[in-house]
Amino acid sequence: LHVPYSPPRYPEETMLQRSKDLYTLMNQRRSVRFFSPEPVPREVIDNVIRTAPSGAHTEPWTFVVVSDPDTKHQIRQIVEEEEEVNYRQRMGDKWVNDLAKIKTNWIKDYLDVAPYLVLVFKQTYGILPNDKKRTHYYNEISVSISCGILLAALQNVGLVTVTSTPLNCGPQLRILLKRPANEKLLMLLPVGYPASDATVPDFKRKPLDDVMVHI
Amino acid sequence: LHVPYSPPRYPEETMLQRSKDLYTLMNQRRSVRFFSPEPVPREVIDNVIRTAPSGAHTEPWTFVVVSDPDTKHQIRQIVEEEEEVNYRQRMGDKWVNDLAKIKTNWIKDYLDVAPYLVLVFKQTYGILPNDKKRTHYYNEISVSISCGILLAALQNVGLVTVTSTPLNCGPQLRILLKRPANEKLLMLLPVGYPASDATVPDFKRKPLDDVMVHI
Ligand SMILES: Cc1cc2nc3c(=O)[nH]c(=O)nc-3n(C[C@H](O)[C@H](O)[C@H](O)COP(=O)(O)O)c2cc1C
Ligand SMILES: Cc1cc2nc3c(=O)[nH]c(=O)nc-3n(C[C@H](O)[C@H](O)[C@H](O)COP(=O)(O)O)c2cc1C
Repeated sequence: LHVPYSPPRYPEETMLQRSKDLYTLMNQRRSVRFFSPEPVPREVIDNVIRTAPSGAHTEPWTFVVVSDPDTKHQIRQIVEEEEEVNYRQRMGDKWVNDLAKIKTNWIKDYLDVAPYLVLVFKQTYGILPNDKKRTHYYNEISVSISCGILLAALQNVGLVTVTSTPLNCGPQLRILLKRPANEKLLMLLPVGYPASDATVPDFKRKPLDDVMVHI
Repeated sequence: LHVPYSPPRYPEETMLQRSKDLYTLMNQRRSVRFFSPEPVPREVIDNVIRTAPSGAHTEPWTFVVVSDPDTKHQIRQIVEEEEEVNYRQRMGDKWVNDLAKIKTNWIKDYLDVAPYLVLVFKQTYGILPNDKKRTHYYNEISVSISCGILLAALQNVGLVTVTSTPLNCGPQLRILLKRPANEKLLMLLPVGYPASDATVPDFKRKPLDDVMVHI
């Protein structure tokens, strides 16, 4: 079944203004690693997560939103333990060196402080009603795309996050959060307001001409 | 060097309203495979691409924006030739069956019709000023995240696209577009207004409770 589709259409001037406005908004986005413990209304988080479904129609994702302090602390313990090994052994000098200017290390206070931790799982396959497996083509790309939309949605409401990919923590976190075997952790996003004294590395982004080619 | 960061902060009511508005906007997004040939102002496209830079600070992406009709047609020829083999041989009955309800096949008129084709390349490594290679950790995830933001930016200005991943076409398209060996095609996004008689498959998205777990 196919149905007609006609999304809203704007005059060119409006398009131009809207494209500038969203660029301005998204250009202000930064990864923040210092959070305020202030609560954030749950309905805002629900609406933000709701924007995520977007990719191939397998919708191969589960967003686990953790606000329970004990669970957050257990997540912190798992992540810090693995990240210490990552930094000391697994990542190698080159990688650790590349991270030096971001000044990250394995201590992650924000995992206790941020009011929400959003753990994004990709479903590597689905289970059909007849119990057969259903392959999820391109599941990692689909879930990453949906996280991009999530980043836009957070920025749009004035909340901050850091896109993190805690190496080697997936299996333990999957078990802690009781997720089934077809799900694998892809990202961990702490969500909240920034701390009043939050800082970020003084990065510049590449100019448009370095990332775009017109033919 | 770290610098203070304090993004705009909104009252809770405003946050709630903004989160609802973006959800409404993004929930209207659909993959469109029927385009209008009408031109779209180039500045809008530039602003949209500009929102993409967002990921790990390697910024491992190149967006090739093709509007030249001959190049678009050559892209179409490459894609249709490979997609015919994909559908007939490479994908297997199961995959082809999963696609039946979307009614896609290897004929891609939209590659000629859409005013822009955006070919998104991931840079698997970078080249440092001293000619050494610089590893791009998680480059596919970063580029996919930036495509998610791109989808939001297109939706925001009333343009449509279909996220496509043309299997096996990467090497030929890379050579056609003269991209260096460290770049690999990740996605191809036709961009424009929908055809006035565009249709989309009559899909429902999963309800929020199926994709989100609160702990
Ligand atoms: C795929 C991906 C993985 C990342 N993993 C981590 C991580 O594990 N820990 C962390 O602190 N930051 C992580 N980041 C955040 C990047 O360091 C950050 O996006 C980059 O330095 C650019 O800064 P900006 O987000 O403020 O523009 C990751 C970002 C991406 C896109
Ligand atoms: C990673 C990814 C790859 C996709 N590849 C293709 C493709 O090669 N061809 C195509 O017609 N659609 C492709 N799609 C579009 C999906 O079929 C579409 O997103 C899905 O059916 C859901 O429909 P919607 O986007 O209208 O919500 C792809 C989507 C994603 C996220």
